[in-house]
Amino acid sequence: MIIYTNQVNKRARQMKKQKAALLGASGYTGADLLRLGVCHDGLEFVALTANTHAGKSMADVFPHLANANLPDLITNDEVDWQNIDVVFCGLPHGTSQTIIKQILDNNPKIRIIDMSADYRLRDVNTYRATYGAKHIAPELQEKAAYGLSEFNRDAIKTAPIIACPGCYPTASLLALLPLLKAGVISSSDIIIDAKSGVTGAGRGLKQNMLMAEANESIAPYGVGVHRHAPEIDQELSKASGDDIIVNFTPHLIPMSRGELITAHVKLNKSSNINDLRAALESTYKDEPFIKILDAGVMPITGHVRGSNFCHINVFQDRIKGRAIVIAVIDNLVKGSAGQAIQNFNIAFGFDETTALEQMPLFP
Amino acid sequence: MIIYTNQVNKRARQMKKQKAALLGASGYTGADLLRLGVCHDGLEFVALTANTHAGKSMADVFPHLANANLPDLITNDEVDWQNIDVVFCGLPHGTSQTIIKQILDNNPKIRIIDMSADYRLRDVNTYRATYGAKHIAPELQEKAAYGLSEFNRDAIKTAPIIACPGCYPTASLLALLPLLKAGVISSSDIIIDAKSGVTGAGRGLKQNMLMAEANESIAPYGVGVHRHAPEIDQELSKASGDDIIVNFTPHLIPMSRGELITAHVKLNKSSNINDLRAALESTYKDEPFIKILDAGVMPITGHVRGSNFCHINVFQDRIKGRAIVIAVIDNLVKGSAGQAIQNFNIAFGFDETTALEQMPLFP
Amino acid sequence: MIIYTNQVNKRARQMKKQKAALLGASGYTGADLLRLGVCHDGLEFVALTANTHAGKSMADVFPHLANANLPDLITNDEVDWQNIDVVFCGLPHGTSQTIIKQILDNNPKIRIIDMSADYRLRDVNTYRATYGAKHIAPELQEKAAYGLSEFNRDAIKTAPIIACPGCYPTASLLALLPLLKAGVISSSDIIIDAKSGVTGAGRGLKQNMLMAEANESIAPYGVGVHRHAPEIDQELSKASGDDIIVNFTPHLIPMSRGELITAHVKLNKSSNINDLRAALESTYKDEPFIKILDAGVMPITGHVRGSNFCHINVFQDRIKGRAIVIAVIDNLVKGSAGQAIQNFNIAFGFDETTALEQMPLFP
Amino acid sequence: MIIYTNQVNKRARQMKKQKAALLGASGYTGADLLRLGVCHDGLEFVALTANTHAGKSMADVFPHLANANLPDLITNDEVDWQNIDVVFCGLPHGTSQTIIKQILDNNPKIRIIDMSADYRLRDVNTYRATYGAKHIAPELQEKAAYGLSEFNRDAIKTAPIIACPGCYPTASLLALLPLLKAGVISSSDIIIDAKSGVTGAGRGLKQNMLMAEANESIAPYGVGVHRHAPEIDQELSKASGDDIIVNFTPHLIPMSRGELITAHVKLNKSSNINDLRAALESTYKDEPFIKILDAGVMPITGHVRGSNFCHINVFQDRIKGRAIVIAVIDNLVKGSAGQAIQNFNIAFGFDETTALEQMPLFP
Repeated sequence: MIIYTNQVNKRARQMKKQKAALLGASGYTGADLLRLGVCHDGLEFVALTANTHAGKSMADVFPHLANANLPDLITNDEVDWQNIDVVFCGLPHGTSQTIIKQILDNNPKIRIIDMSADYRLRDVNTYRATYGAKHIAPELQEKAAYGLSEFNRDAIKTAPIIACPGCYPTASLLALLPLLKAGVISSSDIIIDAKSGVTGAGRGLKQNMLMAEANESIAPYGVGVHRHAPEIDQELSKASGDDIIVNFTPHLIPMSRGELITAHVKLNKSSNINDLRAALESTYKDEPFIKILDAGVMPITGHVRGSNFCHINVFQDRIKGRAIVIAVIDNLVKGSAGQAIQNFNIAFGFDETTALEQMPLFP
Repeated sequence: MIIYTNQVNKRARQMKKQKAALLGASGYTGADLLRLGVCHDGLEFVALTANTHAGKSMADVFPHLANANLPDLITNDEVDWQNIDVVFCGLPHGTSQTIIKQILDNNPKIRIIDMSADYRLRDVNTYRATYGAKHIAPELQEKAAYGLSEFNRDAIKTAPIIACPGCYPTASLLALLPLLKAGVISSSDIIIDAKSGVTGAGRGLKQNMLMAEANESIAPYGVGVHRHAPEIDQELSKASGDDIIVNFTPHLIPMSRGELITAHVKLNKSSNINDLRAALESTYKDEPFIKILDAGVMPITGHVRGSNFCHINVFQDRIKGRAIVIAVIDNLVKGSAGQAIQNFNIAFGFDETTALEQMPLFP
Repeated sequence: MIIYTNQVNKRARQMKKQKAALLGASGYTGADLLRLGVCHDGLEFVALTANTHAGKSMADVFPHLANANLPDLITNDEVDWQNIDVVFCGLPHGTSQTIIKQILDNNPKIRIIDMSADYRLRDVNTYRATYGAKHIAPELQEKAAYGLSEFNRDAIKTAPIIACPGCYPTASLLALLPLLKAGVISSSDIIIDAKSGVTGAGRGLKQNMLMAEANESIAPYGVGVHRHAPEIDQELSKASGDDIIVNFTPHLIPMSRGELITAHVKLNKSSNINDLRAALESTYKDEPFIKILDAGVMPITGHVRGSNFCHINVFQDRIKGRAIVIAVIDNLVKGSAGQAIQNFNIAFGFDETTALEQMPLFP
Repeated sequence: MIIYTNQVNKRARQMKKQKAALLGASGYTGADLLRLGVCHDGLEFVALTANTHAGKSMADVFPHLANANLPDLITNDEVDWQNIDVVFCGLPHGTSQTIIKQILDNNPKIRIIDMSADYRLRDVNTYRATYGAKHIAPELQEKAAYGLSEFNRDAIKTAPIIACPGCYPTASLLALLPLLKAGVISSSDIIIDAKSGVTGAGRGLKQNMLMAEANESIAPYGVGVHRHAPEIDQELSKASGDDIIVNFTPHLIPMSRGELITAHVKLNKSSNINDLRAALESTYKDEPFIKILDAGVMPITGHVRGSNFCHINVFQDRIKGRAIVIAVIDNLVKGSAGQAIQNFNIAFGFDETTALEQMPLFP
């Protein structure tokens, strides 16, 4: 990676501020978008929506943002779309596809940066099988750019909809795409054993998310059936040309933020652990947010907390012909809101690191 | 206050009390052996050693045991071995093999229940390669019983040394041995992705074990080189007849107790997920501490906290021909001190569940 | 596995088992009563109620009790009261007073051990002011014994209703009653700064109880208005003869269990710190569960976790003429379910420590 | 408070960068100064010292700063003082006073921003009594400005040494100074019941700071003897004209960051709770970092995590004539590194919020 330097000085000072609406401002993803976005020179939040909290101030739903001088919450219907350049969508899937279609039908110049799952899957049948309902806007589906910033900048620059990847796909793809593209690992039997903090489950009231239940415990969930798996399949298959189905086994970890994926992979015949390292390093050598750690150094989620960084390393397996690839991100930042801002920067011509310069919060 | 004495003692029905020495009483394993053991009708702790804390009371090193009416700490040299029936050894490896040899050379009637790693590995070369030094008592190594209670009761009943398994091997073997023995999974490419609370690392002062560093973070460690891997290899190989080398990838989880292993395995040709479930259920149908959960129910470490239980379940992988086996234990109980007491019960003819009846502490 | 049954049962020496109904078995207090109670020689749970979960097994609502061989959940209406000797009530206030009245009206021989707040307050006006509704059974109110075990054994032995104290009152009264009774502290300006783990708030779904919200944060709540304050007033006033109103300031701590109260008090004219220590030590010298720590040793909640112990110490304030008294308990045990069992033991003639012998779970 | 708006745009763009040395870069305070400081337009870290880690990169001692393009660690002796404009000192007390004296003796133009305790106390006898050794530079002591930014800007602008307050004094003084100055509370019997996350104890290896020991527990410490108490006495006495001695009772909370103080105070005769609120609001109405919450809203540490904000509220006590004042800060930010940067901004003429614009990290 390029050594990161604070870009604030170098930024254009006369940049036009883009007027943004954030849909779903009462969830964790929305809140983290605001946390980062309010420090963005070229971004102004003019509308924040949260249907069930409309009328409240942000200080009411997120007291940590009390000092950010943000507009009060309104309903989606109250937004003055004429006044909006960009929409960040942090609504649940299903709801998102409908409102995004409505917005674009009436305001084709608005750019959509969608943090929901609705425009990630290309195949309508996979969408229906995964999310249990037919997609209502398959024609938009096709025009959406998959928003894995490091791998899809050209499409992100111009697409009407940028479908930001899920948190697990982000970490998994950043770890595995360079290896599949370089042909150094097998496309079969890819095992992704994933671990995430509880914010990944959102702010909904569920018993297993209570502090007393989630604390001091580790709990697997969605084993074999998690909705992020088909998304990983799709992107790995596209990159490799093979029809990949991955093992995806997520676990809930007693912490708020952070996500680690441990990918257990088979080396291709002629390749060895150094080839994997080389593939990762060459892919990311110019990337500001992706760091390949020195050999033997462990990626640890605490070291990327609150930031847009992804740390990756690769390890020799005890079993001959296999390797272990480990990647860490903050699920709410590079796994969601941070990548959304990174995509905004790409789409609107800002330095890609704008508003993402914060160092991780450790401890 | 009146010094609290275990009321269970008053219930004793003329049961002969075995006089026990606990070596290494200032560590977490030793403390948990006392926590459970003071409620045992047939066990009396007459000597507790901790060389660097000799002279202190248990209340000084573990205030939670202040009410247990235990003897003060002494050095190993101060123990009156004539007065001892059984030794629980919670010392570090290396130290353990030496003192155990000395004890048995001079007091052949004493039974040793060793919670260290020193007598677990059968092969002297593997021991040297794994622990970095030659074993000083290979002749005792041969006589030791591997103390995985459910699988080795006959040997445990009579062996002079019972080598209690490591915490990771305990969970891994309980999950995998029935499957290998039944021939329903392949012995190749067994991947054990493991997660443990911080007590697994002991009470030593290490920077990465500080609350501020370990909290709110997940950290892999010992990837490809952890010392529990050869122990797992040994027992799986012995059970299967194949020469098994496993992938073993442990992660440190921000919690005190609890351990979960996620084993990713290949089904054998003719077998399916129901065969795996059947193998587990038939193996453990009469076992008091091992529970195979209903299909779809997730094993969660919080549900076994503080107890000797192990919960196991098996899941269909998304990849055809593969399965996921998940097991949870409390690393300090079934993974160490609890299994030591279970082995003591087997060795001395007590009901196997004696002093292990406590329900898990949840939340 | 064989359904695990408490081995203690096998040890029973012809002790008559009391048949118990637990009302409200799906909450944390109910679960902890079962965790401890299933190890009681003289107690058999024959009915467990949870209206919204009726029909489920305990394994469904509390998987950690899956191995305890307990009856399935039923509604309150389904209980066969003829078959019940004792009722443990873990229902919310309001509901509790109604059902308890009904039970006693129809089954006057049943003893009630109430863990709710309904029969704690003696004064009907205080009850109404505190809980927002008129008490429906003031005549029973009078007959109830306040179940602070160490201070009210005579009444507990015979009362039809034993009103177990709130968790905060338990810790506060154990720390302060001996001092007021001995006349060594002033009855004015008693400041109780309290800290509790999240289980104190119960298992209800509230946003501030989500792991992501409660974790890594400390939050005061109910400042000046908490319902436990009038209960503390009542008992301190009764003991001192003065009309005491306390400052009570609770804080929510990011942990599951444990409660610490820091009482800031004024010494009476002639008294000093040694007098306070002497009053505490002489009060509790014969008590199995209350430990006055050595001078300078800090009471720490982790050292009583999961147990019925209370640790207390007293410290010289920097301000002349003042002292600081600190007490710790496990809010679910001595602060609720454990004290309920202790009261059951007193009421039914068992050794007071029966089923409460477990050492604290540390770490 | 003034509604906070991101000042990045408004900052002078041609500002001269001040060359900074950070002494003690391997501690948490040092790390947090870097986390924030690397985003400061007018600050360049040219020397980082950590005697025991000299030669290492920052990535070695704090991997979360791996991407910040910082110089490697050197010893204090290796710093080229000619090239330094400002020194941030994060060394332990004792060491700090010595090296600061050496620096100023040889380089009188260098400004010192000291985060240690060495120049906070004005009285040499109090220093000796509190820190157990005679101060070696009492003449510098007199010239130091007490760095409580909001109350001492004039002195901070010009003093050679800025002695940043301790974390507890910061929260306590921000809560209490306006009330004492307004004469609305009594100067006697001020009780400060304080709670802090574990980073307050630093990065040293202590058993009680291990995750397994500190987690899931609350532990009072330094009751009656904590070194921050005389510092609070000094500043409150100075402000009130009275000779104030406070009760100061700190507790360790199982979280990494955050500090909450609960001050229990007596109202002065004629004053009421509204007077307290008015005093706080008028004092802080123009302050960017201090927010007086709406009546009834609880200050919660999670809502200021990682930020330089302080939230304060005041509550009516149940005891007549008393009130409760609660303040929260991040102990490493407003309680240390953030306030150091705020003081740097004051001293060097930058906008006071420069590099402190980050919103809190919640969850």
